[in-house]
Amino acid sequence: MKMTLLYTYLHADLALIERELEESIQADALLLRQASLHLLKAGGKRIRPVFVLLGAKLGDYDINVIKDVAVSLELIHMASLVHDDVIDDAELRRGQPTIKAKWDNRIAMYTGDYIFARALELMTEINNPMAHQILSDTIVELSIGEIEQIKDKYDFTQNLRNYLLRIKRKTALLIAASCQLGAVVAGVPVEEHRKLYKFGYYVGMSFQITDDVLDFTGTEKELGKPSGGDLLQGNITLPVLYAMQDEYINSKVRNVHQGMDREDLEEVLKLIKNSGAIEKSLQISDRYLDKALAVLEQLPPSKAKKSLRDIAKFIGKRNY
Amino acid sequence: MKMTLLYTYLHADLALIERELEESIQADALLLRQASLHLLKAGGKRIRPVFVLLGAKLGDYDINVIKDVAVSLELIHMASLVHDDVIDDAELRRGQPTIKAKWDNRIAMYTGDYIFARALELMTEINNPMAHQILSDTIVELSIGEIEQIKDKYDFTQNLRNYLLRIKRKTALLIAASCQLGAVVAGVPVEEHRKLYKFGYYVGMSFQITDDVLDFTGTEKELGKPSGGDLLQGNITLPVLYAMQDEYINSKVRNVHQGMDREDLEEVLKLIKNSGAIEKSLQISDRYLDKALAVLEQLPPSKAKKSLRDIAKFIGKRNY
Repeated sequence: MKMTLLYTYLHADLALIERELEESIQADALLLRQASLHLLKAGGKRIRPVFVLLGAKLGDYDINVIKDVAVSLELIHMASLVHDDVIDDAELRRGQPTIKAKWDNRIAMYTGDYIFARALELMTEINNPMAHQILSDTIVELSIGEIEQIKDKYDFTQNLRNYLLRIKRKTALLIAASCQLGAVVAGVPVEEHRKLYKFGYYVGMSFQITDDVLDFTGTEKELGKPSGGDLLQGNITLPVLYAMQDEYINSKVRNVHQGMDREDLEEVLKLIKNSGAIEKSLQISDRYLDKALAVLEQLPPSKAKKSLRDIAKFIGKRNY
Repeated sequence: MKMTLLYTYLHADLALIERELEESIQADALLLRQASLHLLKAGGKRIRPVFVLLGAKLGDYDINVIKDVAVSLELIHMASLVHDDVIDDAELRRGQPTIKAKWDNRIAMYTGDYIFARALELMTEINNPMAHQILSDTIVELSIGEIEQIKDKYDFTQNLRNYLLRIKRKTALLIAASCQLGAVVAGVPVEEHRKLYKFGYYVGMSFQITDDVLDFTGTEKELGKPSGGDLLQGNITLPVLYAMQDEYINSKVRNVHQGMDREDLEEVLKLIKNSGAIEKSLQISDRYLDKALAVLEQLPPSKAKKSLRDIAKFIGKRNY
C-alpha cells in the first residue's frame, strides 16, 4: 500500500503544493534553478507538507494561507539534505546523483543556502509571531544537530543518548514543528497544537529510527542508494549501537572506513543484521509510535486525526 | 582618523551590541561556539549595526528593540563570510585564519548555517511584517549573488554589468536593508525609510568598489591578508575589468590561476595598478557616493543624518 492512500482528500492540495515547490525555486540563475529542480524532481515523501496540512485541518483550514507554510517546511528539509550530502560525501539520493556529485560541493552549499532563503521568504507571508518563533527555534536546533553529526562521526564510544539527541535535532523537531505550525497558523487552540507538536516529535523519532534500520534491511532499489551507507559514512545509528554490545561485532565495526572493500562491508552489515540489533531498534521505534498514538488520542475525533493515526502506523511498517 | 569617531554617541550602544553578538552564538556544541567566536573575535567594522542604529535614530529609537535587528544583520553578514571563505578557498580573513582553514570546509558550512539560524531567531523577536519581508527578500538576493559569484569566477568575458549586479547582491543590498530596517522598526515614515534604503544601496556599492580597489592598493598589514587575493581566486573586480581593456594586460590577466608564482602575480598586479584602472574605479565609487549624499540631503536635518553623511564620505577615503 502507498502512504498517499491514507489522505486522498488532500491530493488536490498536495498537487498544488508540488507546483508551488517548483515555482518557489525558479531562479534567474540557471545553475541554481537546475540544481534545485534536480533535487525536487528526485521526489521524496513530502511528509512535512502532509503534516502541515493535517495540522491545519484541525483549525480554520485555508489552503491559500497554509500552502506557504507547507512549501516552506519542505524547502527547509530539502536545504538541509543538500548540506548533509556535502558532509556525508554522498553520491546518490533517491536514486539520483546528489547535487554535490552532479555539480560540486560549492554549488551544493550555495544551492542549500538559496533553497533555505526561499523558504524564509515564503514564511514571511505568514503574519503570526508564534509561528516564526517555533520555526526559528527549530532551525537553530537543526543547525546544531548538523554539526553534532559531524562531531559524532566514526565516534564508536557514543551512547544511546547521543544518538537520540542527534535524531531529535536532525529529524524529529522539524516534523514536530510541521504538525504544530499547520495548526498554529490555522488558529488551533494552544493545548491542541502543543499535543500535535508532541505527536510529531514522537512520530519523527520513530520515523528516523525506521530510516536508520532500513539502511541495513532495505535493498538498493528500495533505498535509491546502496545499503549500509550510513555506517560507511561513519554515522553510528541505533542498530550499530545495539550490535556493538557484542565484543566481536564491536571490533569489526571499528574497522569500517570510507573506501573499504564492499565485500568486507557486507560482512559487517550481515553481522549487525543477525545480531538482533534490528529487532531491538524496531522495538524502540514502536515505543515512540505508541507514545505518538497516545498523545493523538487526546485530540477530539476528526478525519484529519484518523489520517494522522494511519500515517503514524504506516511509518512503523514502511519499507522505503 | 578612525571611523568610530564619527558616531561617538553610539559607542555605549555598540558595546552592548558587541556583547549581544557574543551572547547570540553561545552554543552548547563546543565546536560551533569555538568556530563562531573565532570569527567574531577577528573583528570587523560592524558597519551594518552602525547603519541599523543610525536608521533607527530617525524614528523612535529604543536600543532594547533595535539591538536584535543590529545583531541579526551582523550575524547574517558573518554567516555569508564563512560560506564565502569556503568558496574562495581563503586562508586568512582580518589577519586570522579562516574557519575553513583552522577547521575544515564542513565545519565552516555548518558554522555558517548555525550563525544564520541564530540571526533568524533574533529577528523573530521583531514583530513587524514589513521588516521580515525586506530581510527575506534581501537574503534571497544575497544567496543568488553567492552562486553568481561562483559562475563568474575566472570568467574573463564578463562585463561591467555582471560586476555591478554581483556587488549589488553581495554587499549593497544588505547595507541598504540595514539602513532601512533600523528605520522601519523605529517607525520612520515610508517615504523616509525608502530614502535610507537608497542611501544604503549607493553607499554599499561605493563601499564594495573601494574594497575591491584596496585588494590592489592595500598592504598585507592593512588588508589582513596578501594583496591581489581577489584576482588570484578568480574574482574579476572593477579594476581588473578596466585594466583588461588593454590587450597586453588582458592576456596577462587571463593567465592568472590558483597556485601561480607570487612573483608572476605581483607583475600582473603592478600592470593593473599602473594602467589607470584604480583611478577609474575610484571615480565610479565616488559617483555612487555622490548619489548617496544627494539622497541623504532629502532627509530632515539631524545628528544621525550628519553621522550618515560623515560615514559615507569616510568610506570613500578609507584605507582598510
